[in-house]
Amino acid sequence: MGKYVAGVDLGGTKIYTALADDSGRLLAETIVATGAGDGGEAVVRRIAATVAEVCASGGSGVDISALGIGVPGPINPATGLVDQAPNLGWRNVPVKEILQQTLGVPVLADNDANLAALGEHRFGAGAGVRNMVYVTVSTGIGGGLILDGKIYHGVSGAAGELGHMVIDPLGPLCSCGRRGCLEALASGTAMANRARELVAAGCGQAILHKAGGRAENIDALTVAAAAAGGDGEAIDILKDAGKALGMGLANLVNLLNPALVVLGGGAMNAGRLLWETMEQELKVRALAAALENLRVVPAALGKRSGLMGAVALALRGR
Amino acid sequence: MGKYVAGVDLGGTKIYTALADDSGRLLAETIVATGAGDGGEAVVRRIAATVAEVCASGGSGVDISALGIGVPGPINPATGLVDQAPNLGWRNVPVKEILQQTLGVPVLADNDANLAALGEHRFGAGAGVRNMVYVTVSTGIGGGLILDGKIYHGVSGAAGELGHMVIDPLGPLCSCGRRGCLEALASGTAMANRARELVAAGCGQAILHKAGGRAENIDALTVAAAAAGGDGEAIDILKDAGKALGMGLANLVNLLNPALVVLGGGAMNAGRLLWETMEQELKVRALAAALENLRVVPAALGKRSGLMGAVALALRGR
Repeated sequence: MGKYVAGVDLGGTKIYTALADDSGRLLAETIVATGAGDGGEAVVRRIAATVAEVCASGGSGVDISALGIGVPGPINPATGLVDQAPNLGWRNVPVKEILQQTLGVPVLADNDANLAALGEHRFGAGAGVRNMVYVTVSTGIGGGLILDGKIYHGVSGAAGELGHMVIDPLGPLCSCGRRGCLEALASGTAMANRARELVAAGCGQAILHKAGGRAENIDALTVAAAAAGGDGEAIDILKDAGKALGMGLANLVNLLNPALVVLGGGAMNAGRLLWETMEQELKVRALAAALENLRVVPAALGKRSGLMGAVALALRGR
Repeated sequence: MGKYVAGVDLGGTKIYTALADDSGRLLAETIVATGAGDGGEAVVRRIAATVAEVCASGGSGVDISALGIGVPGPINPATGLVDQAPNLGWRNVPVKEILQQTLGVPVLADNDANLAALGEHRFGAGAGVRNMVYVTVSTGIGGGLILDGKIYHGVSGAAGELGHMVIDPLGPLCSCGRRGCLEALASGTAMANRARELVAAGCGQAILHKAGGRAENIDALTVAAAAAGGDGEAIDILKDAGKALGMGLANLVNLLNPALVVLGGGAMNAGRLLWETMEQELKVRALAAALENLRVVPAALGKRSGLMGAVALALRGR
């Protein structure tokens, strides 16, 4: 069993690669553009190159004994294929096999949200917990489940799709084509969309001001900045998102009775108000038995949750 | 390892006990009234007596090597206590230990909905499936999760509470004090309540007729009978319940990606319309990845789901 492994967090825009030792300490990191438009083969070559690069910057004589990689789509546990990764334009890509042949070491692949959950579980906020739900609130809302100490995949690797939980059957249209999904109510995109609608209707001026007067620059953090300045419209947006998030988490904890919910993703930086409203609604909506042993905490690894999950996976696969 | 075990399905009104051989074949069954009002000790004595009775009717010389029992409340996996069983008036009752001392054989206890799931998984509709959700639609709505081949309990034994998933935040009041829970929209009680409200408002005459003119006799099956006769009000009640159920199942399968959902409970006998509306809404609301490998089927063991789960548990504990 070698001392070093590599982890890759493959996203639609960036490839984030690191070299780690057997305690999970990162020795070198690199970020390059994915260039998804160049096609799957080019992306896989780029990944192999970043792995070689972190090995080289780790000093001479560094060989890895395994590679872990997170991909932005479900991996079918039966076939090992990336069924579908819309952000990469991939369908049925055997990423694991190609990389294994190229690099000559065992390659372990999983969905990126599952690996973010694993990363937090092994190295972050969830260390030592048996049942944990990781939720990422970003442009979309996704998640990963650690149940009885392991990543839970479901029958075809699609488990953990928290973002499309129906919260309000008559709510706003979601990117999935349905109405009132959690993602359509509480994601960063949902908050920004609502703010832009206000601006289009001639309101939302405080939010627009925080975006430098350009509606296209509005995001969850702009809304948060306006709310921090006391703007009522921005406060309403954050509160409604927090409420929807609390309802979604209540459904989740009633069903899975986890010891821990870890919340990550850029939109969770939209400030205290979002968090407080979420917690309040969760307490109102969840059953006493589910709340009793529950903690809800922010992710500890920030942008490295997925990368550290890839490292954890590689360490298991040595 | 002995050839025989006993299983007990302990309910708020009935104690259902059976003797089974090591293949799960039932050799004797008995049902007695729980008499919960007499207190915990009396109920436990009654259980011990029913076990002796099924052993005796199984022929002379029948000794059991283990007892499995399902109780109507969560069992804390850490303490083994029945935390709370409102239907029995129990709190922190060490049912497992008392029965073990009385009967002198290993006693294995679990929540009744979990055991109904296990019964269907081992002997019924879910045989051979790795990830399965059991949902019971009765006076309330409950469920049990079989994940990666085992009952999933969560951190304090409270997992599987499907009934209090929020489906419509502004919907009708639930028995739990919250609004718009699945149970408040799609349980047998919810359907009956809505029919009674119609009657109280001077409508719902076809349903009232099927209940023999007595509003207090209205239940889900009365509504189903009126719907079968073409009554529009009854049809609406079934359709709305089916729709809520489909939404709840969509949330469930998006999150857990099971291979199978098994639907049991008396209210699922309310006919094709309930089932069809549920399936339709599930298909509209669930993600393609979650639907692809999913089957939704009726429970195969009827009233014996929980009992057979208790037998399965006992067989494991020999």
